[in-house]
Amino acid sequence: MPKKIAAFGEVMMRLQVPGHDLLSQSNMLRYSFSGTGVNMLSALANFGHTGCLISRLPHNPVGDAAAAELRGLGISTKFLQRGGDYMGMYFLENGFGVRPGRVTYTNRLESSFNTAPEGTYDYGGIAQSIAAIHFCGITLAMNDAVRSHMKALALAVKAQGGLVIFDSNYRASLWGAEGHTRAKPYYEDMLKLADIVMMTEKDALWTLGMSTDKEGRKAQLEELIPAVADEYGIKIIAGTHREIHGDNSHSLLGYIYKDQSLVFADPLRFSVYDRIGAGDAYASGIIHGELEGWPAEQTVRFAAVAGMLAHTISGDTPKASEGDILRAMTEAVGDVER
Amino acid sequence: MPKKIAAFGEVMMRLQVPGHDLLSQSNMLRYSFSGTGVNMLSALANFGHTGCLISRLPHNPVGDAAAAELRGLGISTKFLQRGGDYMGMYFLENGFGVRPGRVTYTNRLESSFNTAPEGTYDYGGIAQSIAAIHFCGITLAMNDAVRSHMKALALAVKAQGGLVIFDSNYRASLWGAEGHTRAKPYYEDMLKLADIVMMTEKDALWTLGMSTDKEGRKAQLEELIPAVADEYGIKIIAGTHREIHGDNSHSLLGYIYKDQSLVFADPLRFSVYDRIGAGDAYASGIIHGELEGWPAEQTVRFAAVAGMLAHTISGDTPKASEGDILRAMTEAVGDVER
Amino acid sequence: MPKKIAAFGEVMMRLQVPGHDLLSQSNMLRYSFSGTGVNMLSALANFGHTGCLISRLPHNPVGDAAAAELRGLGISTKFLQRGGDYMGMYFLENGFGVRPGRVTYTNRLESSFNTAPEGTYDYGGIAQSIAAIHFCGITLAMNDAVRSHMKALALAVKAQGGLVIFDSNYRASLWGAEGHTRAKPYYEDMLKLADIVMMTEKDALWTLGMSTDKEGRKAQLEELIPAVADEYGIKIIAGTHREIHGDNSHSLLGYIYKDQSLVFADPLRFSVYDRIGAGDAYASGIIHGELEGWPAEQTVRFAAVAGMLAHTISGDTPKASEGDILRAMTEAVGDVER
Amino acid sequence: MPKKIAAFGEVMMRLQVPGHDLLSQSNMLRYSFSGTGVNMLSALANFGHTGCLISRLPHNPVGDAAAAELRGLGISTKFLQRGGDYMGMYFLENGFGVRPGRVTYTNRLESSFNTAPEGTYDYGGIAQSIAAIHFCGITLAMNDAVRSHMKALALAVKAQGGLVIFDSNYRASLWGAEGHTRAKPYYEDMLKLADIVMMTEKDALWTLGMSTDKEGRKAQLEELIPAVADEYGIKIIAGTHREIHGDNSHSLLGYIYKDQSLVFADPLRFSVYDRIGAGDAYASGIIHGELEGWPAEQTVRFAAVAGMLAHTISGDTPKASEGDILRAMTEAVGDVER
Amino acid sequence: MPKKIAAFGEVMMRLQVPGHDLLSQSNMLRYSFSGTGVNMLSALANFGHTGCLISRLPHNPVGDAAAAELRGLGISTKFLQRGGDYMGMYFLENGFGVRPGRVTYTNRLESSFNTAPEGTYDYGGIAQSIAAIHFCGITLAMNDAVRSHMKALALAVKAQGGLVIFDSNYRASLWGAEGHTRAKPYYEDMLKLADIVMMTEKDALWTLGMSTDKEGRKAQLEELIPAVADEYGIKIIAGTHREIHGDNSHSLLGYIYKDQSLVFADPLRFSVYDRIGAGDAYASGIIHGELEGWPAEQTVRFAAVAGMLAHTISGDTPKASEGDILRAMTEAVGDVER
Amino acid sequence: MPKKIAAFGEVMMRLQVPGHDLLSQSNMLRYSFSGTGVNMLSALANFGHTGCLISRLPHNPVGDAAAAELRGLGISTKFLQRGGDYMGMYFLENGFGVRPGRVTYTNRLESSFNTAPEGTYDYGGIAQSIAAIHFCGITLAMNDAVRSHMKALALAVKAQGGLVIFDSNYRASLWGAEGHTRAKPYYEDMLKLADIVMMTEKDALWTLGMSTDKEGRKAQLEELIPAVADEYGIKIIAGTHREIHGDNSHSLLGYIYKDQSLVFADPLRFSVYDRIGAGDAYASGIIHGELEGWPAEQTVRFAAVAGMLAHTISGDTPKASEGDILRAMTEAVGDVER
Repeated sequence: MPKKIAAFGEVMMRLQVPGHDLLSQSNMLRYSFSGTGVNMLSALANFGHTGCLISRLPHNPVGDAAAAELRGLGISTKFLQRGGDYMGMYFLENGFGVRPGRVTYTNRLESSFNTAPEGTYDYGGIAQSIAAIHFCGITLAMNDAVRSHMKALALAVKAQGGLVIFDSNYRASLWGAEGHTRAKPYYEDMLKLADIVMMTEKDALWTLGMSTDKEGRKAQLEELIPAVADEYGIKIIAGTHREIHGDNSHSLLGYIYKDQSLVFADPLRFSVYDRIGAGDAYASGIIHGELEGWPAEQTVRFAAVAGMLAHTISGDTPKASEGDILRAMTEAVGDVER
Repeated sequence: MPKKIAAFGEVMMRLQVPGHDLLSQSNMLRYSFSGTGVNMLSALANFGHTGCLISRLPHNPVGDAAAAELRGLGISTKFLQRGGDYMGMYFLENGFGVRPGRVTYTNRLESSFNTAPEGTYDYGGIAQSIAAIHFCGITLAMNDAVRSHMKALALAVKAQGGLVIFDSNYRASLWGAEGHTRAKPYYEDMLKLADIVMMTEKDALWTLGMSTDKEGRKAQLEELIPAVADEYGIKIIAGTHREIHGDNSHSLLGYIYKDQSLVFADPLRFSVYDRIGAGDAYASGIIHGELEGWPAEQTVRFAAVAGMLAHTISGDTPKASEGDILRAMTEAVGDVER
Repeated sequence: MPKKIAAFGEVMMRLQVPGHDLLSQSNMLRYSFSGTGVNMLSALANFGHTGCLISRLPHNPVGDAAAAELRGLGISTKFLQRGGDYMGMYFLENGFGVRPGRVTYTNRLESSFNTAPEGTYDYGGIAQSIAAIHFCGITLAMNDAVRSHMKALALAVKAQGGLVIFDSNYRASLWGAEGHTRAKPYYEDMLKLADIVMMTEKDALWTLGMSTDKEGRKAQLEELIPAVADEYGIKIIAGTHREIHGDNSHSLLGYIYKDQSLVFADPLRFSVYDRIGAGDAYASGIIHGELEGWPAEQTVRFAAVAGMLAHTISGDTPKASEGDILRAMTEAVGDVER
Repeated sequence: MPKKIAAFGEVMMRLQVPGHDLLSQSNMLRYSFSGTGVNMLSALANFGHTGCLISRLPHNPVGDAAAAELRGLGISTKFLQRGGDYMGMYFLENGFGVRPGRVTYTNRLESSFNTAPEGTYDYGGIAQSIAAIHFCGITLAMNDAVRSHMKALALAVKAQGGLVIFDSNYRASLWGAEGHTRAKPYYEDMLKLADIVMMTEKDALWTLGMSTDKEGRKAQLEELIPAVADEYGIKIIAGTHREIHGDNSHSLLGYIYKDQSLVFADPLRFSVYDRIGAGDAYASGIIHGELEGWPAEQTVRFAAVAGMLAHTISGDTPKASEGDILRAMTEAVGDVER
Repeated sequence: MPKKIAAFGEVMMRLQVPGHDLLSQSNMLRYSFSGTGVNMLSALANFGHTGCLISRLPHNPVGDAAAAELRGLGISTKFLQRGGDYMGMYFLENGFGVRPGRVTYTNRLESSFNTAPEGTYDYGGIAQSIAAIHFCGITLAMNDAVRSHMKALALAVKAQGGLVIFDSNYRASLWGAEGHTRAKPYYEDMLKLADIVMMTEKDALWTLGMSTDKEGRKAQLEELIPAVADEYGIKIIAGTHREIHGDNSHSLLGYIYKDQSLVFADPLRFSVYDRIGAGDAYASGIIHGELEGWPAEQTVRFAAVAGMLAHTISGDTPKASEGDILRAMTEAVGDVER
Repeated sequence: MPKKIAAFGEVMMRLQVPGHDLLSQSNMLRYSFSGTGVNMLSALANFGHTGCLISRLPHNPVGDAAAAELRGLGISTKFLQRGGDYMGMYFLENGFGVRPGRVTYTNRLESSFNTAPEGTYDYGGIAQSIAAIHFCGITLAMNDAVRSHMKALALAVKAQGGLVIFDSNYRASLWGAEGHTRAKPYYEDMLKLADIVMMTEKDALWTLGMSTDKEGRKAQLEELIPAVADEYGIKIIAGTHREIHGDNSHSLLGYIYKDQSLVFADPLRFSVYDRIGAGDAYASGIIHGELEGWPAEQTVRFAAVAGMLAHTISGDTPKASEGDILRAMTEAVGDVER
């Protein structure tokens, strides 16, 4: 791959209570740095791609630690800016069985990323040196300045013939009251520019305001996803349906819409160790399959297993190599490898 | 609630081997402070009640650490006495799957609580300022001095029109040989004074010496619990039937007997993280329902879910709020909350 | 003591890298909750006083953990408000020997405390139930709303005949460029209201803009402190001179100005384990001495040793009891106590 | 038992990433010392036997730590030699659910054990003082010098009328290309000397080059194991069939061939905590049953439950006592024992 | 050495708060097993001797862990009895600099050791197989039953021509009010039987009630130690004078009285990591020198350095080999050895 | 700097017992990856240079973890080869005060680096893209193949006009008996090619076999270093004299010989936290000063402070920025920076 893949997004500091304790039971936190873009590029680095993060970190010890971790994950920091004062952070209390985990955010609106002024990023220079760029709906929810960087980057990449990837990732808590209505125009902007989109029927119904008579998630999906692709001119739409069980296991059904056809992966059920970031692992599988030119069937199966394996790994960032995933696609659950 | 809830009982230091190691495999212990009364008051504090522990702690660094933890749990220490030299302690080695956990006690009979002399507690003063008091069968097993404090407190509270709550909690290892026979008179004393009792058909059969022709736990329960209520004049009797499975999951069936009627909660099966103290969480749900004046059906369902959630939390003391429990009663197992 | 002592100030979450690692070397943080007011009240609780924190915490798991820790420290939370979304936080990387430690703050201006709207605190009600109130210069640096709460509380307490205590605690990084000039009017407001003040000659020179021909810190102190007391009508001014050595030891010289006379404690040199919060321990010793009516000589010696011992304890909050301090004042360094 | 049981084999240092992290995610390792012989003797010590390890450790701090751990496990170190420079080591990354664990070895061929020169062990002296000796196929894969020690010891023990036990334990990665062909003569040597052998139908098919028309593991086993016993004159052959599931559980079917009859234990399915060394626990159960003179049915059931319980314990070395195993054979899964 | 060295004494479980935290600041404890006899035998094992502990442990998981640790330390457990229910335990909070550490005991009088009934130990059989036996003044403080075992063992060993070693180790908190008066007859019993005694001039003054006109510890020592040796017929008396400084360093002056002559080691000053058990390391050096037949000068220098090095090692049990000590006696402080 | 700095050397896995425990006292190890080349490039990265490591790592999870850590340290991995099977490792037990630390190596001669076959590194291609290359005497001690890569790289860089840096770093344990004689020809080869050399008078005396009548290290240094520079045509020779004290402090005297003149830094004494790798920090300061064209006085003072600060940081790799060092050169020891 001569050209690199970029992602635009915030780096978050994850502060996780070890084990299954609550914040009021423990006195230790494990920290790491992640974010949709970070997770995506990290997963793609495991598949042999070189990714660059377009973001902004503070020039302090926290920013230094974040930059070191990004480099360690195999992500190029050459488009990474330093400035501003803060990093977005979130606390994670793991759930257990029937008890859901909890995420508590700090005030990320003042983060280095979310306060990056005009002129921070060299849209044109970046666009010239990359083959594809990834955005996500979480970033879209931040503020006008961030949305402006986002749109300018998407346009610049488009202009250079690069691929635009958009993960809808609607977070109700970020958009607030009347969120779907507020979000719609921004989502429509991105959908019109995007070649590959991660979304579900819920995005179509709630954010885009589409409707259907169908009942059941799958039937709604089968009606709405083709309609979205048609309306916004999107080449590929992919996503998952997730079901959560009381025994620490989840079920995952992956799908991809491409060339007028909606293809499903085999449904998977598996024990879950760390759920966060697993959606990004799925998306990275879709992108990898597309970049490799695989048939949709192979891509969606690869992506679903990539997503599944990400649930078995600590931290937000996926760790499975292409080989790990291919092996898990073909073999029974293995004994310890020695 | 103008008046407070009190509990009389020992504070134990729990010394837990981290993870699933045995004492002979590790070199670290995690410690916390608990006990039936502590767990109960802590759970009720999470529901918005103010509870006071009636107990006695040594005046040394271990006692200081215990008092700090009680305050942190939201328990008032105004009735807490300091004196004596020791705290009761127990070691906990977690089990895993088919391997049961193990509890090893230290010599608690010389603890500050179990050696509290006459005059330690101001029965009358306490009784005047509380609306209800909780006792348990573990305390009853200690020695004559403790039983004397227990009975005097129950009588004083009764005299002031307060509610007496008694959790049978028969521990065979504490009563020793011929234990049921030795225990019977003390249990009868408490049952006659109690308004709300936690017990099962086994207590009726083995401790109270009642008999039944029925087979099966549920049938025996349906016959014996009304008989006990009748004989001892108890308003409410509640409890659970527990079944333990080899995959780290338990089943729990909660019941409550009130107004001549035995009501069951839906049976629950769930993965277990920390089993100790979960019975106290169930009891706290029953007490909360009664204090709130809920119908028996709601109370028993709330209590069963409170008990279930306590299995998913580290440590003896329950941590779920009323909101957490109500949500778990109505919703499917949730994704991470963010 | 019939009436309680209050402190007004922010609760900060301290996120400390364990041992002597940097943030870029570790993946774990130890957390605790502190702040000048917290430290002060915690120290006074160790001396037998009851203190109440006037502050505001978010209604989320981080706020819950903070409230639990405050209760555990023996601080009454009855004046604690819940609201807003965030807590102020700081990262601490311990230094070692010649390498200084580093503190990195998160954006605390959006914290629950710093965004508390008008009407959050019941100035009059609080003032009626307390005998003394403590403020600090860090809080003064925040914003107009906080300064407004601060002044209103001071006036209300003054009106009820209570004692006003002010710790100058000038933090250059919070006041920014031209900081001393910006700070001066606010400091003068507080000094005029205060009965007991913690400050050094540097505050007089730089913030209050006073001048002296003397050279050497001690000589300047001897000239300026009486002048400040005179000008602002302050009964007691106290503080310390600190010197830092390359072998992990510090020297501390405590002083108190009272009744026209400046009294020094014996200079102390000692190995340092955790320097943060030790200034608050010194101040708590001054306040305790005053509340107990000790002569200035005893008060300043007690405070200096309280400050010294706080350097040997992990965390911001002092832990020494009155007995611990009195023993360290009179005895040689002791062997392990067993 | 007047005479002791010996085992000949390497002591390995196990370096385990805590929890479920990968080496690239953590910075801590938990270490312990194990090996087939160590595990076997440790399990037998739990059953009341005295075992001696015949091995060689370096004379450095790593060797000292290993020797201390062996003594702690109740293994006699009187036949343990010190010399050479290194210990064999392996890294263990735990798997989770569908993700298999990974073992990465260091270069063990230069270990103290694998470089023990002629004359290291006093074959005759050892043989005189032991009743049985255990070998394993992992050791057989090392080099000619080790194989020479192994054969000489087996002959010496045989000459003294002692029991020879051989665990086939074929490790493909150690034998390399054409491994089965290379291994066959060495395996045949050991099988001819052995009284008790641990093996499966795969060893018969692949290493010994036998053939069968049967399909299915069980049918092949039923044909091949008696044939092997017949051909090599082996009194007892035992082993397990294992199946691995995606929910962190395994199934285990134990069998023993003795007196012309192949007996199976009840199939067991259970949650798995630490899979490594569980095969040695099964083998120790077989040996214990034989040494105690139990009927084959009892021996194989005991061994299967011993193997099952070893999956619920951290580390390679089994920890269950005879009592623990007998209880687990007869009872339902127990509640915490207190 | 054909015959072994024995020690009679209790095994204590040490529960240490990690780092320099107090019990009220932490939630973790590190545990290990020690005691004067354990420390002594462990140190002598490091010097190549074989030692046997005469003691009694409970038959529960705590006793199992203790026995495993003893074996790991190289101590023979063949005279170790199992019975009773409890182990003595103590909590250790490390001090720092000017802040002394704190030890808090649990109720050890009900421990397995302190409740060992008559007939527990085979005095004669033990005496026949050992060359020397070690006792200490802590054990002497326990109760009549323990003192009776102690005296019977000392007499039996004496009768067999073995060496009796007694470490005075007077602990004021164990003897209580009028302690010295109560202790005197028991101390005199032991001194009359002992060949080697560890004591200081304080024991002579306070426990034995001797007097001197000399001032200063050294002058008193020079007068009193020869007098004690003379009066009780003791061959060797040794001990140390310790001084504690505020910078985490101690000074140690070792001495030995033998053949009418009092010999001092060079005074040593050194940084201290873990002070507990260091006195036992000094005593082990004296015993080792005597067993090896070294001149008094060499013995006391060896013992003093053994004591010094024990302060630099975590835990109660010394870890230095003879080689480590000889190297530290002759060389400057070394760089890391690689 | 348009061209990069390279270093040729092995990456070692450091396995450190946490705190001050011995391997026989703990069960945990902290791991990191280092080596003279790694440390050097990491320090230079902190000063703003880009460095590339020329080395070889195994293609397994250990090699993956090492590569991730190198990237995290800011070291380019573009010249890093993957192949072979093992990594060199060492265990580190920290010393304390008078007790020296201990390093125990595993068998590194079979490591991926030490078994790199001919053709592994593209000498010419590397030489063209770098401005300077660093070698060390530890690498020189390995084997002929490694020495052959080393010489070929040095010649290629020399041919391209690049700078050759050689750190003598003689390790007696690696060269074995007659080590100096064996080492001399290889050292002479490197000295003839080198522009900048790190060495002391001991290297001149013992390895190069030079002689002097002077006594005292400094006098010997002043005579021998100019002689070495003269004989081998070396532009710059630098190094340190180190003295180790019993209170966890070291003294360091840095020197540089350049332009016929030997310049000393101010002697420094400081508390030591982690001594390993500090020599590399000093060397990095010398190289940085030279690359920046600083006068010798400034360079040697910067290097000495860089070395000093590296003793205050955990791990082998230095962490101080240029700013940190400049501040420590000019200021008194600072208070915590907040």
